[in-house]
Amino acid sequence: MHTLWEDRYAHRTGAMQDSVIRELLKLTQLPEIISFAGGLPAPEVFPLDEFRAACETVLREKGSIALQYGATEGYTPLLEMISRHTARYGIKVTTENIMITSGSQQALDLIGKIFINRGDTLLVEAPTYLGALQAWAPYGARYLTIGMDNDGMITDQLEEKLRSGIKFIYVLPNFQNPSGVTLSMERRKHLVNISNQHGIPIIEDDPYGQLRFEGENLPSIEVIDCQMNENDGDSYSGNVIYLSTFSKILAPGLRLAWVIAPKEVIRKLVQAKQGTDLHTSTFNQMVAHEVGRGGFFDRHVLTIREVYMHRRDIMLESLQESMPDGVRWTKPQGGLFLWVTLPDHMDTKKIFLDAVKEKVAFVPGESFYPNGGGINSMRLNFSNATPQKIQEGISRLSKVIRTHM
Amino acid sequence: MHTLWEDRYAHRTGAMQDSVIRELLKLTQLPEIISFAGGLPAPEVFPLDEFRAACETVLREKGSIALQYGATEGYTPLLEMISRHTARYGIKVTTENIMITSGSQQALDLIGKIFINRGDTLLVEAPTYLGALQAWAPYGARYLTIGMDNDGMITDQLEEKLRSGIKFIYVLPNFQNPSGVTLSMERRKHLVNISNQHGIPIIEDDPYGQLRFEGENLPSIEVIDCQMNENDGDSYSGNVIYLSTFSKILAPGLRLAWVIAPKEVIRKLVQAKQGTDLHTSTFNQMVAHEVGRGGFFDRHVLTIREVYMHRRDIMLESLQESMPDGVRWTKPQGGLFLWVTLPDHMDTKKIFLDAVKEKVAFVPGESFYPNGGGINSMRLNFSNATPQKIQEGISRLSKVIRTHM
Repeated sequence: MHTLWEDRYAHRTGAMQDSVIRELLKLTQLPEIISFAGGLPAPEVFPLDEFRAACETVLREKGSIALQYGATEGYTPLLEMISRHTARYGIKVTTENIMITSGSQQALDLIGKIFINRGDTLLVEAPTYLGALQAWAPYGARYLTIGMDNDGMITDQLEEKLRSGIKFIYVLPNFQNPSGVTLSMERRKHLVNISNQHGIPIIEDDPYGQLRFEGENLPSIEVIDCQMNENDGDSYSGNVIYLSTFSKILAPGLRLAWVIAPKEVIRKLVQAKQGTDLHTSTFNQMVAHEVGRGGFFDRHVLTIREVYMHRRDIMLESLQESMPDGVRWTKPQGGLFLWVTLPDHMDTKKIFLDAVKEKVAFVPGESFYPNGGGINSMRLNFSNATPQKIQEGISRLSKVIRTHM
Repeated sequence: MHTLWEDRYAHRTGAMQDSVIRELLKLTQLPEIISFAGGLPAPEVFPLDEFRAACETVLREKGSIALQYGATEGYTPLLEMISRHTARYGIKVTTENIMITSGSQQALDLIGKIFINRGDTLLVEAPTYLGALQAWAPYGARYLTIGMDNDGMITDQLEEKLRSGIKFIYVLPNFQNPSGVTLSMERRKHLVNISNQHGIPIIEDDPYGQLRFEGENLPSIEVIDCQMNENDGDSYSGNVIYLSTFSKILAPGLRLAWVIAPKEVIRKLVQAKQGTDLHTSTFNQMVAHEVGRGGFFDRHVLTIREVYMHRRDIMLESLQESMPDGVRWTKPQGGLFLWVTLPDHMDTKKIFLDAVKEKVAFVPGESFYPNGGGINSMRLNFSNATPQKIQEGISRLSKVIRTHM
């Protein structure tokens, strides 16, 4: 059917595509499929009682504020809560260093809007977070990729990469989506050192940092940057934009996340956000603040870690038991994902089709490589399915993989 | 303080500015100021009890869905509710013609993202909605403006304007923000006729259509377009993209709105939205659906209309009583705003500064003219302040204006 809109699309829509993950998420809704494809939290850990009580309190005590328009920056008491949380790690942060976003996806979009000119080159890990690639595609980003191993981004490659005019470095240091690996302490320092030397700033995307099951907590890139650069003034003025979210420690259905950045960057982000969605739901911000009062998140992450660690263990055991020789996988110390690598000649896109027939799903690894690669790899999510389904799903997946060996 | 971000902003940020309205909204938070500047609904009409009950029901019955990630298009039962609502007006609309957005502001941003190339010219009313200008500035839109009178856009000027290569026409037909005027039936037909003849599609922004206090309901531009063009198939495939919102009939704090468009446009909007914020809060969508079941909105708009009509009447009476000769204003049949025009030599930006000293606020009209104009005009909101404050505020404003006559 012809409409007058058809030949009017902007050039940038050429870079926009239906996401593989989006199409896969549709499959996860079929009850007979065991899906390791999405990035969904376990619904069993949603704090429904606390959430219900918080809705009730907010509506009873401040209903007319909660349902009204609010400030673009965010709800001040929530900004203050995030500021106190961040200050724990030794960062001098005021509410002017923080903006609330409608999920971290929006932070990525707004960062694209204020920083990326068509043709700008960004340095990203390979593999990297697919949502960032989708957010930045309409702005015409190009990518230079840096390899990863079990200690995260291989920072020895940085100097060479940074010679070619990079706008910023994008890094997911903790339990990276999609690989599950964590950037080592040594490499964190190396990354900050080199980025400072070359004058290239960093976007640190940290949705899972609080979900560490084992091993030592490592300081964020932002903290290390603060330690290396003496900052004057009382507010954060470093070279890192830090992103985190309530999606994993409370609930993704709220679409609630935050950015920490120098004041001037926040000011630009606020201008961009105002034209984009005015502000994030006042009600949701107030409910998250109400749930979080009295240290709830600190207690709640203990529950989440326990559930996810158990599921990770079940998945690792199941992989160990059933996968054929030549298949390798990462052993994440936290987060939601692990990464499976098959022998070189195998193509997980082809395996995917057979896997869905056998009622198990994953994301083919190639999706996470902006410049190609990862054909023989896949991302598995271990947070969403129950332990029993994880065992059954990995068993199904192993059988499918064996037929392709 | 120098950071590495400072010299890295994208060119498009040059077009982004702190909004006048945004700065003015800050003033509205000072309790001593009577503000006619914002566009805030009356908090007195928020249906707090229904909202509380709906939160409770949604969390009790479907908590694990409400707090989880959801589909980018929106929550299906809410799409179905909107589809039924729209079908009442004789439009063949399926859920594939609808997408939920995080407020209409997001719909404007996404429309910019998928349609506007740098330098594209859009035809807008003068004055027009400031939020649209802000949404489209980063995409590099240029504007051609069309004059308005008490019957809305002066469609006799259309043919000439459309000769110069217009991407689309943007129109707010009902109780326009900022002018308060409504496009007459004759002109609606004229607009659709000419846009069809010239092959230029239309964005119809209709946040206030349901808030008519008096006079006859007029069909939307989309309905008229459907009537003029025989559409085959069961879904909407016309030349209009229609926007509306829950902000005025339920609560703006939810950030919940919808777009109706041909399927192919919705598909592109969904792709764009996915990179922008993944989806709109599942919880908020489910609560709005729960509140709206059983025809609540139809009943609730009666209450809102009554309250707003009363406030409009008070404002019109107060203007009549206290404004000096030579001051004119529109008499809206619905909505939230009216428009005041002072004698030609006066500048409302200058008057604004004095008004704030006298503790009354408005928006200077110039902000609503993308290519300049409206220096002697102002927008007044009558929905938010109580009747007593409206009387007092107009009295203060009249005094300030008199000192400038």
